[in-house]
Amino acid sequence: MQVRLLAITPNPEKIIEQAGRTCYQSYASATRDSESNFIRRIITNGHHSVLEHAYVTFRITGVSRTLTHQLVRHRLCSFSQRSQRYVNEASFNYVMPQPIADNPQTYRLFEKFMSEAKDVHRKLQQLSIKNEDARFVLPNAVQTEIVLSANFRELRHVFCVRCHKRAQYEIRCCCLTMLRIMKEEAPTVFEDFVIDEETSTAQTPFPS
Amino acid sequence: MQVRLLAITPNPEKIIEQAGRTCYQSYASATRDSESNFIRRIITNGHHSVLEHAYVTFRITGVSRTLTHQLVRHRLCSFSQRSQRYVNEASFNYVMPQPIADNPQTYRLFEKFMSEAKDVHRKLQQLSIKNEDARFVLPNAVQTEIVLSANFRELRHVFCVRCHKRAQYEIRCCCLTMLRIMKEEAPTVFEDFVIDEETSTAQTPFPS
Amino acid sequence: MQVRLLAITPNPEKIIEQAGRTCYQSYASATRDSESNFIRRIITNGHHSVLEHAYVTFRITGVSRTLTHQLVRHRLCSFSQRSQRYVNEASFNYVMPQPIADNPQTYRLFEKFMSEAKDVHRKLQQLSIKNEDARFVLPNAVQTEIVLSANFRELRHVFCVRCHKRAQYEIRCCCLTMLRIMKEEAPTVFEDFVIDEETSTAQTPFPS
Amino acid sequence: MQVRLLAITPNPEKIIEQAGRTCYQSYASATRDSESNFIRRIITNGHHSVLEHAYVTFRITGVSRTLTHQLVRHRLCSFSQRSQRYVNEASFNYVMPQPIADNPQTYRLFEKFMSEAKDVHRKLQQLSIKNEDARFVLPNAVQTEIVLSANFRELRHVFCVRCHKRAQYEIRCCCLTMLRIMKEEAPTVFEDFVIDEETSTAQTPFPS
Repeated sequence: MQVRLLAITPNPEKIIEQAGRTCYQSYASATRDSESNFIRRIITNGHHSVLEHAYVTFRITGVSRTLTHQLVRHRLCSFSQRSQRYVNEASFNYVMPQPIADNPQTYRLFEKFMSEAKDVHRKLQQLSIKNEDARFVLPNAVQTEIVLSANFRELRHVFCVRCHKRAQYEIRCCCLTMLRIMKEEAPTVFEDFVIDEETSTAQTPFPS
Repeated sequence: MQVRLLAITPNPEKIIEQAGRTCYQSYASATRDSESNFIRRIITNGHHSVLEHAYVTFRITGVSRTLTHQLVRHRLCSFSQRSQRYVNEASFNYVMPQPIADNPQTYRLFEKFMSEAKDVHRKLQQLSIKNEDARFVLPNAVQTEIVLSANFRELRHVFCVRCHKRAQYEIRCCCLTMLRIMKEEAPTVFEDFVIDEETSTAQTPFPS
Repeated sequence: MQVRLLAITPNPEKIIEQAGRTCYQSYASATRDSESNFIRRIITNGHHSVLEHAYVTFRITGVSRTLTHQLVRHRLCSFSQRSQRYVNEASFNYVMPQPIADNPQTYRLFEKFMSEAKDVHRKLQQLSIKNEDARFVLPNAVQTEIVLSANFRELRHVFCVRCHKRAQYEIRCCCLTMLRIMKEEAPTVFEDFVIDEETSTAQTPFPS
Repeated sequence: MQVRLLAITPNPEKIIEQAGRTCYQSYASATRDSESNFIRRIITNGHHSVLEHAYVTFRITGVSRTLTHQLVRHRLCSFSQRSQRYVNEASFNYVMPQPIADNPQTYRLFEKFMSEAKDVHRKLQQLSIKNEDARFVLPNAVQTEIVLSANFRELRHVFCVRCHKRAQYEIRCCCLTMLRIMKEEAPTVFEDFVIDEETSTAQTPFPS
């Protein structure tokens, strides 16, 4: 799995402050370092809509279709995904869940099945079946690639749900990686998310 | 594939008229049969937001995860879907695309592969792999079930995109079935969609 | 102010249960009275998306444009509002805030100003100014009418924000009236909202 | 009226191309100047979701509450607006529609009424009426300030509706100004919008 920042609003925290001060016309309080205190206040008191003025785009590769079928349910995000209709998946890669990799027996079963899937997919293509139909044999494990854009408020919501211990491991890892990047890019907006490295989860006292 | 109407706004066309006349305060023009003309006018002149006041819920069963991964991209709809994490898929059913069924050779390949998938999935479970990980071997063809709710405006948009000849066959069939039901339930709202039985497509001169 | 139920999903709590059980395929647990327990569980554990399958439409009359400018900010609702462009507002009604009505001095000031506004509006019309321009003199107090549709999840969110003590009095009253109606129509979905009659507020331990 | 660009995705057209090519895995076709052709193709063939990966934020000042009550109806945009509850509007500015300014008689009527509104508003405040109640006398003409953020797809939709000849003059001007800025910042994405300077309208053959 690879998560890469493609684009982000320049000076996102300054923009959030400038937009947010519109409501109160409190521009006089905006000084060189005032954005952190302003952002802390709006997150604490629940005025989260102001966070919608900053925006970020990630490219996510090497993840399974299982993950993306979950991810695209976040309806306030924007997505562009590798299409199994338009792209030839003859030589697909795949994701093996850790518990399967950990046991030699399940590892071999899984590996063998993936190679059979590739084989059947290829044979169907050779028998003139179109990609859009041949893909019905592709397993959930098949790797895909997706570009996600979201404003910071929605991204916080995604992190609330998908960095939670009830989320599945793969999407949790993906979201934790995005969270770590966001903690670099917009430290105050995401500072309340506390990462627990041991359990690979994150939580905030200010869910949205 | 089965598409069943679960719920719909009672007297949807009357509700649309009553809501829409609020804008113009033209209640005096509302007579016993006036809703058809009112609805025709708002569809023709593009005032489609009024159609959002009527709502419908469908249960869709016996479709592939390929279809639902496309369907859930319609972000203004609401969905509840059979979960491959929480449901034991040991005895899954599957969808075979027509072109694969039409050729005995591809038919056999596909059947055999599905039975292998079931076999591997079962073995993984026996080796203590949890459903949420075992499902990585499940093919796109595996049947799922989904409940979709949408207001009439959004549903018209889904039909525009998914009854189009560029849409994939399975989702096209699914949406045509919903369209046929809607033509019974709200005849005026959907009358401009002309179904071409030969190509299994539908089109409207008033896309939204 | 008048709040009237225009339409609602028939048997909304049964529909929510039927839709929600799709995820777990737990239809066997659906009995004659099982929806209440099912709904309590999804509200408690945060699976609120299932509530999107039930839908309601209200007509709200006799409220100010102040209220509707706040209300239409709830972007997941659908609205149709009396248009000040298309409707002749020559004989408008208006809303007087209670604190202004309570003091004879402010009461008279307000009354006189409203009558002047009506006068100026009428004179502008007589001087061939179109409605869409004449309305620039109309005060926020001018009464409007709006039809709102929302799914139950979004409605719960509106109640969280607008029945809160920080919300303005007028919109708080409006939302409390909707909440009281919903407690009749879908008792379990809204039972966790506790109304404090003394302060005219409502709160839930399960905000969404 | 003043419309000022606050923030925009850096290299927005390159980002759109990079995100869009994910679907087809056609990265090899991305060359130094290839984004224009790519964008033209997706706009022509209706694959507009790709435009959601670029984002822009504007600050709009000196416009009436009439305009913002229309603008905030675009529910896929994000807004932060000067609050008449939290800001003291004692010395408000206002917008006078051109047809009213053009006739000395209506001009005087309007001016006099605005000064009365200011007077009544001040007196109410002196009589201990809170801002949130005193604002009920404020006319639609009162100037406000709003920050709008939107992705490029939604912005195109706003332009389709609000640069149209049926839109009211003030919001049309506002959107035309944004369109002119966007034609500088993302020339290809907005090149199909043809501005008619004489009528102050704009139109595209590819509405979304």
